[in-house]
Amino acid sequence: MEQTMEQTVALGVDIGGTNTSFGLVTRDGVCLVEKQIPTQADRPAEELFRRLSEEATSLLHASPELRLMGIGVGAPNANYYRGTIENPPNLSWQFVDVRKELHRTFDVPLAVTNDANAAALGEMLFGAAKGMKNFLEVTLGTGLGSGFVANGALIYGANGFAGELGHMLIVPNGRLCGCGRRGCLETYVSATGLCRTMRKMLEQQSTPSELRSFSTETVTAKRIAAAAAHGDALALHAFDVMCHTFAVGLANAVAFSEPEAIILFGGLTNAGALLFEPTKRYLEENLFSIYRNTVRLLPTGLPEGSAAILGSAALIWNEIA
Amino acid sequence: MEQTMEQTVALGVDIGGTNTSFGLVTRDGVCLVEKQIPTQADRPAEELFRRLSEEATSLLHASPELRLMGIGVGAPNANYYRGTIENPPNLSWQFVDVRKELHRTFDVPLAVTNDANAAALGEMLFGAAKGMKNFLEVTLGTGLGSGFVANGALIYGANGFAGELGHMLIVPNGRLCGCGRRGCLETYVSATGLCRTMRKMLEQQSTPSELRSFSTETVTAKRIAAAAAHGDALALHAFDVMCHTFAVGLANAVAFSEPEAIILFGGLTNAGALLFEPTKRYLEENLFSIYRNTVRLLPTGLPEGSAAILGSAALIWNEIA
Repeated sequence: MEQTMEQTVALGVDIGGTNTSFGLVTRDGVCLVEKQIPTQADRPAEELFRRLSEEATSLLHASPELRLMGIGVGAPNANYYRGTIENPPNLSWQFVDVRKELHRTFDVPLAVTNDANAAALGEMLFGAAKGMKNFLEVTLGTGLGSGFVANGALIYGANGFAGELGHMLIVPNGRLCGCGRRGCLETYVSATGLCRTMRKMLEQQSTPSELRSFSTETVTAKRIAAAAAHGDALALHAFDVMCHTFAVGLANAVAFSEPEAIILFGGLTNAGALLFEPTKRYLEENLFSIYRNTVRLLPTGLPEGSAAILGSAALIWNEIA
Repeated sequence: MEQTMEQTVALGVDIGGTNTSFGLVTRDGVCLVEKQIPTQADRPAEELFRRLSEEATSLLHASPELRLMGIGVGAPNANYYRGTIENPPNLSWQFVDVRKELHRTFDVPLAVTNDANAAALGEMLFGAAKGMKNFLEVTLGTGLGSGFVANGALIYGANGFAGELGHMLIVPNGRLCGCGRRGCLETYVSATGLCRTMRKMLEQQSTPSELRSFSTETVTAKRIAAAAAHGDALALHAFDVMCHTFAVGLANAVAFSEPEAIILFGGLTNAGALLFEPTKRYLEENLFSIYRNTVRLLPTGLPEGSAAILGSAALIWNEIA
């Protein structure tokens, strides 16, 4: 009789506003199988977790050689200490006890955190921060999230809410933020922030730009990046302004935490050199002298498709390893 | 024959620009004996360490029941990882291998860090942060130093230079800092920063003030605090401006690290409510909503005279305990 070698896996779950992705991830960071289901954020959270549990159970039944070691969940406004999701933006749920929901089906360790923290752990175990003990992960998407690792451990803070670099006040009396204050870093540095800058430039300046052929609402970060890549002066200027503000925010984060690297993750990083080159230059200009030329600015080392699943699975592997 | 009970102590050393203080500190944070010698910063560092070693040796010989467990040293620009002091301001030394100097005489564990980090450890073991795992210590003296504890450990950063909150850029194109950049927090928030604000107000405003009887160079932080305590409108305004800038810097530090408390230490804290009341009020106004009413602003719990010695000794007790 042939005996199959058992393989241990962690279930990584990434809950987004539209879809929820999940997959079975080995200790080496290989995602063996993954799947996506609609989040249905307007329905009760219990329903999502019931569907998720059913789907994950069948994935596991289909591969009896896999042994589930734990479940890691990345979600907006997730709290590591409490194992909850609390008042998530873009989801209709107020308070979800994630551990309770998943323990109905699975008797394994569970860990929950926000997507930026999950990305940081994924990077440390499987990506660009392998072997690093002190680094900062910055997620540039619709907003700006961050995860911050020091002494080899993710810093969760007193109540699980550390790492909100996007809500550092960077411009006195600056742009109104969704949080109700003015001048938060993410109102300038994020896909949304870039679009705000670009629209203002299109309105206030007469410089020709290929973006003038789009209506205001359809000027997206992707289109700005494309225009900048074509050499569009106004789009390049919008990137430059964003990168300068970003660099000042990063210089402040460095003064506080002295990371060996800052790793950028998320949709905006597809802009490549348009983002990295000016940010790196302005960062060096704005760093306190003792930090100059000591902090690397790196792109994520996680594969684009399964990065979020790997990050969530890393929550488990990080605690078992 | 009577037998004396052995008691373990750590030698805490605080190297300042003028004097070097040291003392023998028990695990409970009692400084049994302390002494001060002139630093003689214009002479080679070897001489200070030779004198220090002799003096400490005689203290120990005088109390044979004391057993030395280690030596902790707090000094400007000290590096925890390397056990060195490097290009310290106000001292003529370029590079001092503190561990090597003290190991000539003492065969015990040695640890070295800057004064703000030492204060944070002292606070955690013996002061206002007892039992806390996540807090921020801010030292307000001539400059602004900070020590930052997360997950119960001091955050030293990649190369031992974390915690430079005083060099966060807080005012775009603001005041020139000793570091060569503009707008660093400590150019506004420190004894020096307060004096700069006050002098500017005295020059630019015609409001009567008791400080007008002093020449510009003799307007000290202590005199500004005394005037403010008498109700002097201009001095109160200078404090208010300083506290507002401080609060914005602290709000940003909270967004990053989410401490349960911020503990203030150093000469300026003698101003008491003049400092704490507006800082707390502006902090709450400027905090990202999830942090409001969760972060305590506390005065140091270390006794004024021996705080620096206790902090340095805590470097040893923290690693042994």
